[in-house]
Amino acid sequence: MDEYWMHIAMEEALAAQKLGEVPIGAVIVQDGIIIGRGHNLRETTHNPAAHAEMIAIEEASRTLQAWRLLNCTLYVTLEPCPMCAGAIVQSRIPRVVFGTRDPKAGCAGTLMNLLQEPRFNHQTEVTAGILQEECSELLSAFFRRIRNQKAVLKQKQRQSPEAAEE
Amino acid sequence: MDEYWMHIAMEEALAAQKLGEVPIGAVIVQDGIIIGRGHNLRETTHNPAAHAEMIAIEEASRTLQAWRLLNCTLYVTLEPCPMCAGAIVQSRIPRVVFGTRDPKAGCAGTLMNLLQEPRFNHQTEVTAGILQEECSELLSAFFRRIRNQKAVLKQKQRQSPEAAEE
Repeated sequence: MDEYWMHIAMEEALAAQKLGEVPIGAVIVQDGIIIGRGHNLRETTHNPAAHAEMIAIEEASRTLQAWRLLNCTLYVTLEPCPMCAGAIVQSRIPRVVFGTRDPKAGCAGTLMNLLQEPRFNHQTEVTAGILQEECSELLSAFFRRIRNQKAVLKQKQRQSPEAAEE
Repeated sequence: MDEYWMHIAMEEALAAQKLGEVPIGAVIVQDGIIIGRGHNLRETTHNPAAHAEMIAIEEASRTLQAWRLLNCTLYVTLEPCPMCAGAIVQSRIPRVVFGTRDPKAGCAGTLMNLLQEPRFNHQTEVTAGILQEECSELLSAFFRRIRNQKAVLKQKQRQSPEAAEE
């Protein structure tokens, strides 16, 4: 079942990608029903807090009309950053499932584990690595394309500085 | 000058208190101008992410039309929680000034220091204890009133269970 919901989180990630955003997606499920979903919108909205998890948490809170997201599972394609891990603690989400690890900012076990910090007033069950390869490849392919585009642009600039500016 | 801006953050905290919210307020200042302000709205909005800092960051990003809040200082009456500390890292705010420490969730030096974590891609200058007593008393007085109200209600319930329900 975790794979089923992670596929939907991946659909959200693809929605981000269509907008030129880093492809990261999230869904929040309660009793088999999606109550919140979101995809990374940082560039589109100019909002540093517009991560997939934050948008999904906000939607789920609106759905339930409550800031405590009890009996929910949050699925996200990439390991949460400190902000999103903090929001998960704030909203008392009991379980988080993520796709692939984030070696640069992952705070659900990689750099640190804010979801299971005994000094906070809430700890979360964590399942890592669901559809890991697919979630990782989504990101790798995105950054590969960005690098290729930049390389092509640079080559154009070398060949004809004016044409590249068009 | 830090005290001047912290007084404005305290005004924001009082705006939260008027709504029955825990009194916490924040302002973001760039070149001597307030570009974002916010107060805790967790209960009013049912949104676990509606902390003073998050609202101020979102407003500042709208003002600048950018998710990078460069050359800004964030003033907040209470030490940031992990979510807000994470959002400060995400938005690259170079300086944070807070009033009083949070022994339960403070992540700018008390439980941990996410604002100066060398493994993240951004570190923030931190100044603690500006108007510490005033910021602390604001919170203590709020929780004292809540406790007193609860005590009065309990006493009423003991004296007359029906009247207390009115």
